Amino acid sequence: MTLYTERLQQHLELIESRLTEFLPKGDGVGEIMRYACAGGGKRIRPVLLLEWCRICGGNTEKAIPFAAAIECVHSYSLVHDDLPCMDNSPLRRGKPSAHAKYGETMALLAGDALLNRAFEIMLSAENVEPTAALRAAAQLADNAGVHGMIGGQVLDLDSEGKQIGLDTLKRLQEGKTAALLVAACRMGAILGGGTNEQIENAGQYGYYLGLAFQVVDDILDVTATAEELGKPVGSDDTNEKNTYVSLLGLEQAQALAASYTAQAKASLERFADGADLCQLADALLTRTH
Amino acid sequence: MTLYTERLQQHLELIESRLTEFLPKGDGVGEIMRYACAGGGKRIRPVLLLEWCRICGGNTEKAIPFAAAIECVHSYSLVHDDLPCMDNSPLRRGKPSAHAKYGETMALLAGDALLNRAFEIMLSAENVEPTAALRAAAQLADNAGVHGMIGGQVLDLDSEGKQIGLDTLKRLQEGKTAALLVAACRMGAILGGGTNEQIENAGQYGYYLGLAFQVVDDILDVTATAEELGKPVGSDDTNEKNTYVSLLGLEQAQALAASYTAQAKASLERFADGADLCQLADALLTRTH
Repeated sequence: MTLYTERLQQHLELIESRLTEFLPKGDGVGEIMRYACAGGGKRIRPVLLLEWCRICGGNTEKAIPFAAAIECVHSYSLVHDDLPCMDNSPLRRGKPSAHAKYGETMALLAGDALLNRAFEIMLSAENVEPTAALRAAAQLADNAGVHGMIGGQVLDLDSEGKQIGLDTLKRLQEGKTAALLVAACRMGAILGGGTNEQIENAGQYGYYLGLAFQVVDDILDVTATAEELGKPVGSDDTNEKNTYVSLLGLEQAQALAASYTAQAKASLERFADGADLCQLADALLTRTH
Repeated sequence: MTLYTERLQQHLELIESRLTEFLPKGDGVGEIMRYACAGGGKRIRPVLLLEWCRICGGNTEKAIPFAAAIECVHSYSLVHDDLPCMDNSPLRRGKPSAHAKYGETMALLAGDALLNRAFEIMLSAENVEPTAALRAAAQLADNAGVHGMIGGQVLDLDSEGKQIGLDTLKRLQEGKTAALLVAACRMGAILGGGTNEQIENAGQYGYYLGLAFQVVDDILDVTATAEELGKPVGSDDTNEKNTYVSLLGLEQAQALAASYTAQAKASLERFADGADLCQLADALLTRTH
């Protein structure tokens, strides 16, 4: 089963073909920024942004800078996460991580530059109504900051080597994973001219999709083969990481993932054209890697 | 001679009293963000922003969030600059640097969070006309990024241990020092409702002030006593750093600083109420620390 429907695949291809035009040319820090944003990922955030823009009746062309911006924010977070003082990862998607290839100093600066670039892109986007541009950019800033993604990373660091409860694990994942997915969906709905209720629905979809995604990740670490996953399995257990499986057991974790997925799909009820996002939620639940 | 006139001192006091309301409360990463932004600096960027807003006829109260935001960007750059993989500085303004006090991982995240926060603050500012808010925030994003401050840092790293020419030194300082001062002045003029010509004048003032500031810094490293400077003198020479003094000699460097200062003051010619900014340019030229 592929993750994306034909329509979502078209969004993905659009992003792949357009992303680099928003990044600096030339060598030096620009090269590292392009390296960090190079293909290999699912591009789920920009795909969600474009699709939510579309189903709220908007022109996806206008939303492309914002789709590029959220991918820049995601990429910066990976570059900084991989640094020696953080996860100290030499690899990312099977290739050398940015600091392994370009050195720690330049990777740090390239990460900073990617976060900064996200706002350069959004704030100079043309043909977008100023209040919509402000609101969409503010949404990304809020969800990427201390009350969103960075907050989740801090909670994750605080939890290392400790036994935490389900509430803390959920709060941690709300920040680390869900916050940017919420931002992607809400930004798309904002840029698509959605009503406040539609924007709320979009946020709910992203929220539950994000939570489901992480539960499935934890499950796959236990149930998948290394071949399917493309990385060692059982690493969570080896690292004594707090996961949904370690806290709930496999069966309850599977039920939780199904419940979150159902809630994501329920957020689509009022949309006539939500079939692709509905299929995406199912595909993420049943993925094997 | 004090640096600030009574009016600029009032801007400084306003910023000191209002800055923390834009930063997260509580411990953890919020505490580090507040620590990194705590007093001790000249707050020259927010002071410039508020004064340019005022002399263009604007309400400085509305510009306060933007003044706080540019100080967040400056503070993030200091936190990341001090990190072990960058300058590896244990001290900042006589106190432990952020990573020396809170550890490298949390300092990295607090720096990221401060850059992000700058945009959260600006994009949620109330009572500012949306196109002015967008333009001011875009100005900060552009000048802080790869074509501004980060670009200057990259050039600086590239130049380490090399003999560089005056052109490269100037380009490096345009990014490292002048870019944020230009942003501060232009943002103030934008928020104050200045004409495009006034915004250009503001940018010119910030540009020449920034260049003059750096030349004077290089001169003081040679001419000041350690007591005046509050840090060891002659460190540029010891570190074989490329400076305006090493490239031009002391006399020509002094002439250059005077010339840049004159150009900064010339940008004020069309402003009836530019006396405070004029005095600031003179005070920065003749400072002894």
